[in-house]
Amino acid sequence: MSEDPRNSPPSRQDRRRFLTGGIAAAGGLAATALGARTASATGPDPLITEIQEWNQVLGAGVDETPYGVPSEYESDVVRRTVSWLTADPVSSINFTPLHELDGIITPNGLCFERHHGGTAQIDPADHRLMIHGMVETPLVFTMADLMRFPRESRVYFLECAANSGMEWRGAQLNGCQFTHGMIHNVMYTGIPLKLLLQEAGLRDGAAWLLGEGADASGMTRSIPLDKALDDCLVAFKMNGEALRPEQGYPLRLVVPGWEGNMWIKWLRRIEVGDQPWHHREETSKYTDLLTNGKARRFTWDMDVKSVITNPSPQAPLVHGRGQTVITGLAWSGLGTIRRVDVSLDGGRNWQTARIDGPSLPKSVHRFYYDFDWDGSELMLQSRAMDEFGHVQPTKNALRAVRGENSIYHNNGIQTWLVRANGETENVEIS
Amino acid sequence: MSEDPRNSPPSRQDRRRFLTGGIAAAGGLAATALGARTASATGPDPLITEIQEWNQVLGAGVDETPYGVPSEYESDVVRRTVSWLTADPVSSINFTPLHELDGIITPNGLCFERHHGGTAQIDPADHRLMIHGMVETPLVFTMADLMRFPRESRVYFLECAANSGMEWRGAQLNGCQFTHGMIHNVMYTGIPLKLLLQEAGLRDGAAWLLGEGADASGMTRSIPLDKALDDCLVAFKMNGEALRPEQGYPLRLVVPGWEGNMWIKWLRRIEVGDQPWHHREETSKYTDLLTNGKARRFTWDMDVKSVITNPSPQAPLVHGRGQTVITGLAWSGLGTIRRVDVSLDGGRNWQTARIDGPSLPKSVHRFYYDFDWDGSELMLQSRAMDEFGHVQPTKNALRAVRGENSIYHNNGIQTWLVRANGETENVEIS
Repeated sequence: MSEDPRNSPPSRQDRRRFLTGGIAAAGGLAATALGARTASATGPDPLITEIQEWNQVLGAGVDETPYGVPSEYESDVVRRTVSWLTADPVSSINFTPLHELDGIITPNGLCFERHHGGTAQIDPADHRLMIHGMVETPLVFTMADLMRFPRESRVYFLECAANSGMEWRGAQLNGCQFTHGMIHNVMYTGIPLKLLLQEAGLRDGAAWLLGEGADASGMTRSIPLDKALDDCLVAFKMNGEALRPEQGYPLRLVVPGWEGNMWIKWLRRIEVGDQPWHHREETSKYTDLLTNGKARRFTWDMDVKSVITNPSPQAPLVHGRGQTVITGLAWSGLGTIRRVDVSLDGGRNWQTARIDGPSLPKSVHRFYYDFDWDGSELMLQSRAMDEFGHVQPTKNALRAVRGENSIYHNNGIQTWLVRANGETENVEIS
Repeated sequence: MSEDPRNSPPSRQDRRRFLTGGIAAAGGLAATALGARTASATGPDPLITEIQEWNQVLGAGVDETPYGVPSEYESDVVRRTVSWLTADPVSSINFTPLHELDGIITPNGLCFERHHGGTAQIDPADHRLMIHGMVETPLVFTMADLMRFPRESRVYFLECAANSGMEWRGAQLNGCQFTHGMIHNVMYTGIPLKLLLQEAGLRDGAAWLLGEGADASGMTRSIPLDKALDDCLVAFKMNGEALRPEQGYPLRLVVPGWEGNMWIKWLRRIEVGDQPWHHREETSKYTDLLTNGKARRFTWDMDVKSVITNPSPQAPLVHGRGQTVITGLAWSGLGTIRRVDVSLDGGRNWQTARIDGPSLPKSVHRFYYDFDWDGSELMLQSRAMDEFGHVQPTKNALRAVRGENSIYHNNGIQTWLVRANGETENVEIS
């Protein structure tokens, strides 16, 4: 792996050169605005030298928005669907606009959705959680009961096993929102599942759980007891407030680092047993069919992965050459990210990116690579490594082992082609 | 300071005793639901033993909410105003419902607001930031220009200097939303202000900045250069997405640990000078009048502070005796919180609470104290200590030094009286 001198942030002198060429050098208070996009001298910029309407008019008061909403200028920052991806009568998948976000927290309104029976609308006063099966005392909890138990708050990513699934057979979806947008990263507050199981008392031989949702699909998944006793939460809040309806309000299972389908929403029942249940969503679905006709099953961990979110097809490099921020996300279902490399030339040379902000286990990490773009075509890639030394593979390395029959667990390296005009496409390196 | 054995979480045996007395012991699948609130045996709970409407009906699809909203059952979780607190024509302060939240992240829709000219509505394409004064090259930046600079993402609390201000003269507002709800805690993404100042080039003798907002109030504050070069950000995102309009969209100054009034919203201008400007909001306002007629000025740091958010007057202890979660927030404008103590008896005895989740400098910390409530009256207090050993004072200790002329910088210990029926009031210990 070769290090590129461009890895280090541009020096002040480099940035100055860029700025005097591209941005605004204001001659004293008589500002000269050279927008980086237009790069044409136009004299003083009235937007800074003259009084604007919003400098004079009393703005909206606080009574108008008891619960606040984004600016009208951000109306494009929404979850989006892909029309051919899911069946009627209602779409069941949408995608987080990763290219519009920064930092590591996904705001609740933009957390992607994947439903198997639509969003259940449940009055928390009517919600119950039952724990039964191989326990000493079967228990039924109201939401009020649960509020008496000790709580934890942890930031975790939730990634659908099918995230990037369409890319197994080549570059198909033109935007990281669609190729990688089935992930969100949220601070959950909940009760360690261990405490609730201890309350019921585990019987000898207990080794597995079945979690069941209260929605119309009655989603069920088998979960090994070891995981439940390790770090699973029965969560009721996300990013401080109550779970959103589409995220399982009023109660969801949090299964850190494991595929999103196991994070049972609208959690109503936990059965304890001595073996897995082999239900639909862990046999015909959420298993990975190999080329030899056999299938991997119980592929729970979400492996080390990353994606460049900017630039990307929905967020082209329109500003032209000069100082440029490349940024993206990296994550591992096993723990923290230790390092992210970025390539500008399709994987021939790699530079280490700057990981920024809190480094929390089983949470996304934000990375940046700041460089001076000369305007030539780029083949952008990112490659993550986790604390245990796992390295994100190329798509071809994955295909050599797994074939192309499955849509799940594609953690291959993504490539964006950035053209000289800044337009960006999803491509594959053969 | 004496330690109370109740500090340690209740043992499994203790919790079991509580649960068999209060919650549900389900006889196998024929569940017996003993709601903790009713504590009356009513036989199998149809809400878990029978199929409910939401178990059968296809729920809403993902197309309906491109930008998601909270459940209809959470309609009480809103920012609230106090009618007598601000003048017509529009209210200029609302408060975060701290008693409805958990963890450390405040969702953007619930971040309190304080405006001096209402919320400016600004098209980011028309927004400019000018840096001028004692610089080598005055500069004007568009938003697109700024997107070229290296970024950071950090979680910081923002507290209004007047938070708890009404409490200087005794317990007045019945709810932690109103006594302490002028604080929020968010992950900001922005450009280190240092980089923008370096871009302009500081002239010899530069020692202060003036930040100015683009709203109708033209808010200005003087900020020492040392702080600007330390950890200030010019932020454009909060919790991943664009700043909300009421939080300064598209650009705000982040001044970590310092009073919120300095975090200039709708940031349009930074002037560099050699001394402070002594403008309105740092002379007649945001200074602390003492009993001798003199005023403290430039009281920037938000001192170590905490509050119990649950129970509190808006969130009484309705569930009755037994296992109980006390929780709250602690913060220090200087760094991290090292310890929080909780008292059940008005400050005579103290127990150390459990600090949970990420401990980040100049961010709120979440604390919990789990105990078995015997149903007797409680006088709840919390007391925070930061990493530098600063200890949150009593209100009376503060008054002895500062008098009662100011509404600013009240970080005194808050007391909630919890009656035997669970009702909770804001009281003072004389």
